[in-house]
Amino acid sequence: MMSTTDTETYTVDAIMDTIESNNYHIYFEDSLTALRTFVANGNYSRFFVLTDENTAQYCLPLLREKLGDPENFDLIEIPAGEESKDIDFCIGVWKMLIDFGADRQSLLINLGGGVISDLGGFAASTFKRGIDFVHVPTTLLSQVDASVGGKTGIDIDSIKNIIGTFTQPKAVFIEQQFLKTLPARQILSGNAEMLKHGLICDEEYWNLLKTSDLENPTAALVYKSVQIKNKIVLEDPHEKNIRKALNFGHTIGHAVETWSLINDKDSLSHGEAIAIGMICEAYLAHKKTGLSAAELEEITRTLTNLYPRYELKMEHSATLLEYMLKDKKNQNGKINCTLLSTIGQFNIDNVCTNDELLEGLNYYASL
Amino acid sequence: MMSTTDTETYTVDAIMDTIESNNYHIYFEDSLTALRTFVANGNYSRFFVLTDENTAQYCLPLLREKLGDPENFDLIEIPAGEESKDIDFCIGVWKMLIDFGADRQSLLINLGGGVISDLGGFAASTFKRGIDFVHVPTTLLSQVDASVGGKTGIDIDSIKNIIGTFTQPKAVFIEQQFLKTLPARQILSGNAEMLKHGLICDEEYWNLLKTSDLENPTAALVYKSVQIKNKIVLEDPHEKNIRKALNFGHTIGHAVETWSLINDKDSLSHGEAIAIGMICEAYLAHKKTGLSAAELEEITRTLTNLYPRYELKMEHSATLLEYMLKDKKNQNGKINCTLLSTIGQFNIDNVCTNDELLEGLNYYASL
Ligand SMILES: NC(=O)c1ccc[n+]([C@@H]2O[C@H](COP(=O)([O-])OP(=O)(O)OC[C@H]3O[C@@H](n4cnc5c(N)ncnc54)[C@H](O)[C@@H]3O)[C@@H](O)[C@H]2O)c1
Ligand SMILES: NC(=O)c1ccc[n+]([C@@H]2O[C@H](COP(=O)([O-])OP(=O)(O)OC[C@H]3O[C@@H](n4cnc5c(N)ncnc54)[C@H](O)[C@@H]3O)[C@@H](O)[C@H]2O)c1
Ligand SMILES: [Zn+2]
Ligand SMILES: [Zn+2]
Repeated sequence: MMSTTDTETYTVDAIMDTIESNNYHIYFEDSLTALRTFVANGNYSRFFVLTDENTAQYCLPLLREKLGDPENFDLIEIPAGEESKDIDFCIGVWKMLIDFGADRQSLLINLGGGVISDLGGFAASTFKRGIDFVHVPTTLLSQVDASVGGKTGIDIDSIKNIIGTFTQPKAVFIEQQFLKTLPARQILSGNAEMLKHGLICDEEYWNLLKTSDLENPTAALVYKSVQIKNKIVLEDPHEKNIRKALNFGHTIGHAVETWSLINDKDSLSHGEAIAIGMICEAYLAHKKTGLSAAELEEITRTLTNLYPRYELKMEHSATLLEYMLKDKKNQNGKINCTLLSTIGQFNIDNVCTNDELLEGLNYYASL
Repeated sequence: MMSTTDTETYTVDAIMDTIESNNYHIYFEDSLTALRTFVANGNYSRFFVLTDENTAQYCLPLLREKLGDPENFDLIEIPAGEESKDIDFCIGVWKMLIDFGADRQSLLINLGGGVISDLGGFAASTFKRGIDFVHVPTTLLSQVDASVGGKTGIDIDSIKNIIGTFTQPKAVFIEQQFLKTLPARQILSGNAEMLKHGLICDEEYWNLLKTSDLENPTAALVYKSVQIKNKIVLEDPHEKNIRKALNFGHTIGHAVETWSLINDKDSLSHGEAIAIGMICEAYLAHKKTGLSAAELEEITRTLTNLYPRYELKMEHSATLLEYMLKDKKNQNGKINCTLLSTIGQFNIDNVCTNDELLEGLNYYASL
């Protein structure tokens, strides 16, 4: 929560106006009241709320209270976790919508983290060739990242986001209160994307994050991250060019995440993997795109202070390279990275050789 | 095939220029050469051809011959029939694309009838958030109807088109030759949509169809139908208003089709059911929107001459009304019909009461 002293140290806007995105709004101040208004004025026939077990327990009560349980309100609940983003659960959601008699004037409210917004967004964007949906993101990651940008997605055979659409929600309602029940490790996972936003676009924001209490991110920090992400996706809704900025840390980070999912008992969170990826790719940026040694050092220090150390074994790096090659971001057998030229400035489409990528991995491994 | 004498009697254009649709072209003259050029110049990494058993047998050889089997060409085959439009087959197509290593620069070529174009269009529009696809329609119905307009769809639990997207193909290639192997009953099914096009938009075309050999529809007739459908969908890509013109005959026709699918051993084809629907709805048009008695008589005579008589039992009409209510075109428990004010002019959004609909059914039943 934002305290008075916090506010004074911020250079970011203290007034969190509604953000305009691709034909929809992202609400911050008193956002659940805004949702209530949206629901009341939207001319919808039916309302469906998609939750997982946790958001049904921790977030639904507040939503119900704020909305006052409108008529024609039905719940669809799925288990928590990435496994629920599978096509089988998507079919389950479609069938529930059919059974509940959802028509084209129905609204789906996605109440949860990125799993809920990705799956719910996809299910809605394809049900009867598309019904309206809104996001009420309840994890830090989904507030600063997944709920903005119009990407929906589901998994098949554990291949992440292999099926999806580009479809914008009709609105996003970001409510700080939901973060209160979020486990610390989930907060830390979201922090990685915020730090990424600073690194790629906004040195001042990066500096602010470095000195903030990231375990309790303020609404103003979330707001700033959303502003940055929104600006990028507005310029490039279908990821043809500058949206690739958001991939900083993700070429190597995703490979590390996949490795960990398959091999570790207690696997890395997305943000933990991306933090490792950002360190490796900062090294590549230093080698290839002019990031200074001091900046590399600063990024490395900040991230290693925040995130637990992970043992990256170089004997597994061939497998990591394979994962990078298979990544849907890459084409024609070439591995692409978004790098930095300095803190706050990115550089897309840097083809990296296997040797370079190995060097990057090695930089982290030998820290 | 178009003969010289045929051409002379036509008032429709003999030169079949490429038709411009929603950011893509529909090719007629020497269309498979146009496809070859498209494939050669498209900057695609991989090509996939989706067929069913029949189009693999009857249509693929010609396609291969014309394309000269480009590199990186893979086949995906599904069984023939509406059952293959199910989500399970869609998952099968997605998995084949994954296994074949399809990337975002891949092109899917849908070679077949409406089942192939609907399913293939949906699979492609969602694979990796959308890869390019083109249609090569091989049934009359898909040439004059399914391949134009950007609707994709699949079924769940036999609920037709319950899941889908609005996504335009990158091109459509209409090749008359494919119709040679199409069973007569399939031709007749496609004829119904052509007759509908005349009835809703173009009296001259309707008159031409009445005197044509519909068992062997000429390329010029197909072309005219595509022109009519394309004009309508261009004006209303997401079916908000005038696209409903295309629903003429379909409110009652769909219900009859569903009834027949469930109850008849040899069920009605889509076109056969729509022909019945058009007769019933012409009756409603006569009652409600000014279609003259002579026109009603003319429509009834033309369609009953072409299509086999179907025994519509009035004791089942309650069930038919139920199907109409459940139709995704309808809202708020009201049944909507597109009617005619005269041949060649439509009228959308006519709410019909149960009694009126029963009268319409009864008109056909007591013919
Ligand atoms: N569409 C995009 O642009 C985009 C961007 C980034 C990530 N993603 C996707 O987002 C997903 C990850 O998102 P995530 O980290 O939010 O995962 P998540 O939705 O699985 O949420 C993480 C965990 O937190 C629980 N939770 C959610 N809200 C809570 C709350 N308020 N209190 C207590 N517990 C709560 C959930 O039940 C879950 O167990 C991935 O599938 C990823 O692919 C999508
Ligand atoms: N997207 C749209 O706008 C739209 C419009 C109308 C209909 N549709 C859909 O189209 C489907 C019906 O289309 P259809 O009638 O083409 O069905 P279909 O694709 O099942 O084809 C009918 C039969 O003809 C066979 N066949 C196809 N081409 C052949 C050829 N050249 N020679 C011999 N046999 C051939 C097929 O294997 C199949 O057995 C339905 O699922 C309907 O929902 C979609
Ligand atoms: Zn990320
Ligand atoms: Zn039809």
